Amino acid sequence: MLSFESDYLEGVHPKILEHLVHTNLEKLSGYGDDEYSELAKEKIKRACHCPSSDIYFLVNGTQTNQIVIDGILEQYEGVIAADTGHISVHEAGSIEYAGHKVLEVPQIAGKIKAEVLLECLQTFFADVNREHMVYPGMVYISYPTEYGTLYTKKELEAIYGICKDYGLPLYIDGARLGYGLMSAQADLTLPELAKCCDVFYIGGTKVGALCGEAVVFTHKNAPKHFKTMIKQHGGLLAKGRLLGIQFDTLFTDNLYFEISRHAIEMAELLKGVFREKGYELYVDSPTNQQFVILENEKMEQLRQHVGFSYWGRWDENHTVVRFATSWATRKDDVLRLRELL
Amino acid sequence: MLSFESDYLEGVHPKILEHLVHTNLEKLSGYGDDEYSELAKEKIKRACHCPSSDIYFLVNGTQTNQIVIDGILEQYEGVIAADTGHISVHEAGSIEYAGHKVLEVPQIAGKIKAEVLLECLQTFFADVNREHMVYPGMVYISYPTEYGTLYTKKELEAIYGICKDYGLPLYIDGARLGYGLMSAQADLTLPELAKCCDVFYIGGTKVGALCGEAVVFTHKNAPKHFKTMIKQHGGLLAKGRLLGIQFDTLFTDNLYFEISRHAIEMAELLKGVFREKGYELYVDSPTNQQFVILENEKMEQLRQHVGFSYWGRWDENHTVVRFATSWATRKDDVLRLRELL
Amino acid sequence: MLSFESDYLEGVHPKILEHLVHTNLEKLSGYGDDEYSELAKEKIKRACHCPSSDIYFLVNGTQTNQIVIDGILEQYEGVIAADTGHISVHEAGSIEYAGHKVLEVPQIAGKIKAEVLLECLQTFFADVNREHMVYPGMVYISYPTEYGTLYTKKELEAIYGICKDYGLPLYIDGARLGYGLMSAQADLTLPELAKCCDVFYIGGTKVGALCGEAVVFTHKNAPKHFKTMIKQHGGLLAKGRLLGIQFDTLFTDNLYFEISRHAIEMAELLKGVFREKGYELYVDSPTNQQFVILENEKMEQLRQHVGFSYWGRWDENHTVVRFATSWATRKDDVLRLRELL
Amino acid sequence: MLSFESDYLEGVHPKILEHLVHTNLEKLSGYGDDEYSELAKEKIKRACHCPSSDIYFLVNGTQTNQIVIDGILEQYEGVIAADTGHISVHEAGSIEYAGHKVLEVPQIAGKIKAEVLLECLQTFFADVNREHMVYPGMVYISYPTEYGTLYTKKELEAIYGICKDYGLPLYIDGARLGYGLMSAQADLTLPELAKCCDVFYIGGTKVGALCGEAVVFTHKNAPKHFKTMIKQHGGLLAKGRLLGIQFDTLFTDNLYFEISRHAIEMAELLKGVFREKGYELYVDSPTNQQFVILENEKMEQLRQHVGFSYWGRWDENHTVVRFATSWATRKDDVLRLRELL
Repeated sequence: MLSFESDYLEGVHPKILEHLVHTNLEKLSGYGDDEYSELAKEKIKRACHCPSSDIYFLVNGTQTNQIVIDGILEQYEGVIAADTGHISVHEAGSIEYAGHKVLEVPQIAGKIKAEVLLECLQTFFADVNREHMVYPGMVYISYPTEYGTLYTKKELEAIYGICKDYGLPLYIDGARLGYGLMSAQADLTLPELAKCCDVFYIGGTKVGALCGEAVVFTHKNAPKHFKTMIKQHGGLLAKGRLLGIQFDTLFTDNLYFEISRHAIEMAELLKGVFREKGYELYVDSPTNQQFVILENEKMEQLRQHVGFSYWGRWDENHTVVRFATSWATRKDDVLRLRELL
Repeated sequence: MLSFESDYLEGVHPKILEHLVHTNLEKLSGYGDDEYSELAKEKIKRACHCPSSDIYFLVNGTQTNQIVIDGILEQYEGVIAADTGHISVHEAGSIEYAGHKVLEVPQIAGKIKAEVLLECLQTFFADVNREHMVYPGMVYISYPTEYGTLYTKKELEAIYGICKDYGLPLYIDGARLGYGLMSAQADLTLPELAKCCDVFYIGGTKVGALCGEAVVFTHKNAPKHFKTMIKQHGGLLAKGRLLGIQFDTLFTDNLYFEISRHAIEMAELLKGVFREKGYELYVDSPTNQQFVILENEKMEQLRQHVGFSYWGRWDENHTVVRFATSWATRKDDVLRLRELL
Repeated sequence: MLSFESDYLEGVHPKILEHLVHTNLEKLSGYGDDEYSELAKEKIKRACHCPSSDIYFLVNGTQTNQIVIDGILEQYEGVIAADTGHISVHEAGSIEYAGHKVLEVPQIAGKIKAEVLLECLQTFFADVNREHMVYPGMVYISYPTEYGTLYTKKELEAIYGICKDYGLPLYIDGARLGYGLMSAQADLTLPELAKCCDVFYIGGTKVGALCGEAVVFTHKNAPKHFKTMIKQHGGLLAKGRLLGIQFDTLFTDNLYFEISRHAIEMAELLKGVFREKGYELYVDSPTNQQFVILENEKMEQLRQHVGFSYWGRWDENHTVVRFATSWATRKDDVLRLRELL
Repeated sequence: MLSFESDYLEGVHPKILEHLVHTNLEKLSGYGDDEYSELAKEKIKRACHCPSSDIYFLVNGTQTNQIVIDGILEQYEGVIAADTGHISVHEAGSIEYAGHKVLEVPQIAGKIKAEVLLECLQTFFADVNREHMVYPGMVYISYPTEYGTLYTKKELEAIYGICKDYGLPLYIDGARLGYGLMSAQADLTLPELAKCCDVFYIGGTKVGALCGEAVVFTHKNAPKHFKTMIKQHGGLLAKGRLLGIQFDTLFTDNLYFEISRHAIEMAELLKGVFREKGYELYVDSPTNQQFVILENEKMEQLRQHVGFSYWGRWDENHTVVRFATSWATRKDDVLRLRELL
């Protein structure tokens, strides 16, 4: 059976596995103080052109969002996010669990428009009752967004400009960062993205790793005692090597970008197939996730032969579903899907 | 200068003050175990026709909402509220501080429509990814709402019916309950309201008390060890008498309702004045808060002579402001305002 | 029946009540922005010789401790306290509810010894694993302590010296501050105490008020947006006047100290009675709380005629109980107790 | 250089690695719904003789403790633990972060004595002021303890008996469970341990896995929606296979116990070496961690040639250090250490 449910169907990219195997019996320091974690940090700094950044490895995306946001915000502050943002909808309230409100603003194609952000901040600061309200303390966006869409460089700069005007850190959730940067539509590079925010993370789990995300505080602005905060949140691995070795591999010989590019090629092929076959796309996604509107009956038929994900109800008779490609998707699978459709 | 800023401008209704004076030197048990608190509870039970309810006195509205909601919800649950609800906007994130998401739904005139609630619940339970989402754990509405509007009995029953279908407790914030029940538009009584929810509170602070709200768990459904939870949240008064004596007075000889009715009469007078003078109302509020759209210039002029509250920006040249009446509003003040306008 | 259960048996000092009555119908701004709150703050600043302090009024002691401690600590920090401290034992876990560990150190007569504090801090900072531990972020002591005992000026200075060496704010819980300062054994004044800490509170509830505590950040060091944090914790009163008027009265004509002195005189009388009658004291308390070891049988007899509080088990046959005096205790009552014994 | 710093120096047991390699390109469901996770659960149920238990895989020990404890406790409850317990000291306050107090009781050789537990509970329930205190909601012990010591079956039964009398769940932290069960001193088996508690976890990270702990709710008593709580705490892996495959291997052909037994043999050898060379042991640990008191000068010399961990200050001239063995320790290394000493 064909499977396009997600970008985390397979285990780990073979090169990472090889590196894990080779280093397996080395005795290394725990809790991230090993040499592979150091190496990985150096390579990431170089890749980002951020020589004086602070880098931490965490295990998964929700954990990363919770710890970074909770670490940055003051207790009376909340985080501004699109109402479709991952933290708004699909992290089981982990930001609220940490005591902070997600200040949801309406999205367009998964993105926060600069004008919407500005309006939100102006309204707050114009409100004489704001002492009784949650203060906006940072802005959260995703690259790519939940809908697979991308901010242009200009859009990102506009948002970051507003953030700086209001003294708010900008945080970019890069769970699928590679797939964003390698998209044909992307008009910015990793170093350019790093310059346009205060903290972001480079997603590993969905881009070839078994688990792991690399948080980059772009200008040595990690919260004080951040490692203790990671421990307190239950995010510190005794065998920190697991994360270090993976990112060391991903940032050697451009692997992270190569495998991301492959996924994008497969996604473009997939999109072509859907268009060719007359399917309606829910959004025109330039990245590895493709959203298609299926008639419910058709959906049930298709489900017998190919895996995909439920995304949401479209109307009584139609459903939005997601097909995802990844570093591991084979061209052959896409072609077989084409036949199926 | 005239003052219509709020319904908590004056101290306390004279009858309450008198009762505080008379009982002042009695030696009473602490932490709410005094006889006046007991008396007050009995009187409230009778007024609500809820002989087997659990009643607790708390100090203010935000505290009440936080403790009740946090006490009822499981940790993975959130509370459904209108996006203009007090807990959504004006309690400084106290629900999120307690770890819970406010699941905001769009309002109409400050109210949650039954269809909107139903749609929200159906969508959640139809979502195959709901394990990654915040579970709806209860529903919060206000009577009257933030806009001074009222649910009809039918509307309330429809909402409560849905709540029961989904096993969700319904909680009514009654910060201004008296002003709601005494409105000409109200088509339900206190016992009827009590029958239509699982927990509600009878607001004291804004209806003649110095401070204090009476929480009624309508069918002995208070969370276990609720008193300890109140303590843990910093809400337990050593001199619980302060709350008991006030509610004992408010529920003696119908005082709570008498003073509420007076406020409504004053509000109707006030609304008439605005209409007579050609002012545009923001909503047609049947309770003690009246919302008027003022030209900004006019607003600045008026502000020299009369106090009112900022409510929100209407457009570039207009602002929504609030005029509130209370148990203490004098007819004379409304007439003087009329002259002013 | 005689009553010595606590120092919060009666309502409120008559002068406060009178002030509440007189100002009752004045229309005042809400949320602490009224003129009486301002007046009270000015008077407290003068009494403390702290012209540039930040002062906030809160409702009760547990709330005050929770909000002050949570406001000061970083999220990875805990508060050092005696293992018998009020926050350690009798506040239902409100500090932990706010996310912080109470780092308990052994007490001697309710006090933290400077050497014990120093040892605790040295041990922590010598521990190479401290990144995995809760950082000490502030020190909490009470004046008087849970056992009614007092720090000498020298002891307090020693503790504050250590706090400053380690960069830790010192916070003094003054729920019964007046009774401490007016004790014959007290060798420091209010301004001297204020100089020896970073924040403290002046207890109202147990010293003549209906409710209310005045927090003094001694050198304009209140956490940013502290008012919003108070709101978020459910501690902000709409009718802030209730607290302002009370403290305005307490700090007019030395009332706070006069009524505290009276309680101390009554406590000394009481202690004399116990000694005269051959009762064993649990500690030699120089303040308004007296702790006596009673044979269980005797305790049950006595309980028929006089109220007192359970404090703890002494041994199989004996119990420690507490007798408290207050501003309201009459000499006559102590003499009647003498007869009883 | 020789290394005995910890039991997490190497990567992962080769058989697990092999299993990861073999299954790597299989497309599997995410979030723990894969077949290897299912297989692993079945094998664990059999090994524990707990056919109707609930099993969850989590990433590390602190996370496991936080989520299990927070999932079980009511908000007004705390967890009883030894004052040297891992959650008391070395988890950066993660339990308090989740809102709960660790109710610390004095330990003897790392263990809670049944009498101490009973006394603690009797005192609490005899206290008339307990409404103002944190309720004991569960009991936490470790097997082996922080000092490597073991509860006897009788001791464990006594503790569990008290827990059942008071209606408190008993939770056993088994971070090093294998090393405990394989000790010569152990007088209970895995099924016997499972019968003596309500929930425990089988530590993977320190017993051969890269990461991962298996939580066993022994009688289908997992908290409702526990998976959503895991997500909310940031503990849910997209590639749940990583944990499933590891535990599938560990519970195939008795691997978990075999490798634990090896570590114990190495530890016994190590202990013999220390004794032979006249070193003083801090405790007589029957498991894989050995605690030795070293003169500081000697310690510095030794540190040039062999790695070990700081445990604590003994006196001015001596330090307690820890030597740990694991599944990966070679006999040769112990013999070389012997020569060194």
